[in-house]
Amino acid sequence: MPQQGILLVVSGPSGTGKGTICRELLRSNPQLKYSISATTRQPRTGEADGVNYLFVAKDHFQTMIENDDLLEWAEVYGNFYGTPRHYVLEQLKNGYDVVLEIDTQGAMKIKEKFPEGVYIYIIPPSLDELADRIHKRGTDSLEVIKKRLHCASAELAQAHNYHYIVVNDQVAAAVQRVETIIAAEKHRAERNTDLIDSLCQARCN
Amino acid sequence: MPQQGILLVVSGPSGTGKGTICRELLRSNPQLKYSISATTRQPRTGEADGVNYLFVAKDHFQTMIENDDLLEWAEVYGNFYGTPRHYVLEQLKNGYDVVLEIDTQGAMKIKEKFPEGVYIYIIPPSLDELADRIHKRGTDSLEVIKKRLHCASAELAQAHNYHYIVVNDQVAAAVQRVETIIAAEKHRAERNTDLIDSLCQARCN
Repeated sequence: MPQQGILLVVSGPSGTGKGTICRELLRSNPQLKYSISATTRQPRTGEADGVNYLFVAKDHFQTMIENDDLLEWAEVYGNFYGTPRHYVLEQLKNGYDVVLEIDTQGAMKIKEKFPEGVYIYIIPPSLDELADRIHKRGTDSLEVIKKRLHCASAELAQAHNYHYIVVNDQVAAAVQRVETIIAAEKHRAERNTDLIDSLCQARCN
Repeated sequence: MPQQGILLVVSGPSGTGKGTICRELLRSNPQLKYSISATTRQPRTGEADGVNYLFVAKDHFQTMIENDDLLEWAEVYGNFYGTPRHYVLEQLKNGYDVVLEIDTQGAMKIKEKFPEGVYIYIIPPSLDELADRIHKRGTDSLEVIKKRLHCASAELAQAHNYHYIVVNDQVAAAVQRVETIIAAEKHRAERNTDLIDSLCQARCN
């Protein structure tokens, strides 16, 4: 039986590049699976069901909540978003690691149910750098950038609730840091109780 | 100011090769320092004061105990052994990591005083392999080997008190695993509170 996989929960302020890091991680680590969120919102152009999101009807989402089929869920501007429990647990059981990119609120809800996950908070090298990045994206007005930065400051206070802090100064370096964390976590004592038990039992027989 | 170093405490059953792993680690990682034990026993041929041990008189050792100058100490066959606190803390403050190879009893005493250390337990791939290694060393009689293996089984039950379990199947691979653990631990949130604070403060000013 393979060692149970690791649930990797990744958060960070908007504009930190956590999405890019997760995509790079998934590209170069075939043992890593992406946890797809379920949502009641309409698909945007180019989004495919089962790839970007599981697009479900509101009453279906309601049933998922009632059946405790979601590790966490939230309502944002009238749309529902949630993390289907079954997919995550199935992958972990089969020895795959699962990466979940989610905001701090969702992450903390999952941490309550799933403390054995690995919680990583991505930070920019500085807030000036973050302002630069959001500015260069060119999608936000100055007013929105200011608001985002204000939120970032507040968000950063959540960092101490995570297990690890990874600075995203260079994407490749940040990806390697996360890979190092995953590799180290495989050796955690609590993930290797079977190994110790089997060593001890082999002697008793 | 450099990030505070990490105290790395390494234990494992006799014959697991933890000594070899620590030597290799120190050889290839200049940021890693070896914690030298103080002892009241006589130096053996080839042992140098300040290199293998700090050789001290019994009354000096007694004073160290009274002054709480030792992170842990023990009496073995009438000789005293202990870990001088000052050297370890000084290195950590200067950003060096310190490796301490010690038995499970000593390790657990240190863990009480120093929970922020990283506690690694080295295990053999199997107890048969361990028996083979002890046998090949050729220094022990069959009777002693049996006793060592019996102790190993009992010792292995301590493994769950450590943070990490590292299998020593190949020395180079085991050394790399420990290096990965050190690298990952540098990103632990509790070791990076200053980083978060300075990011937040930079914004407030």
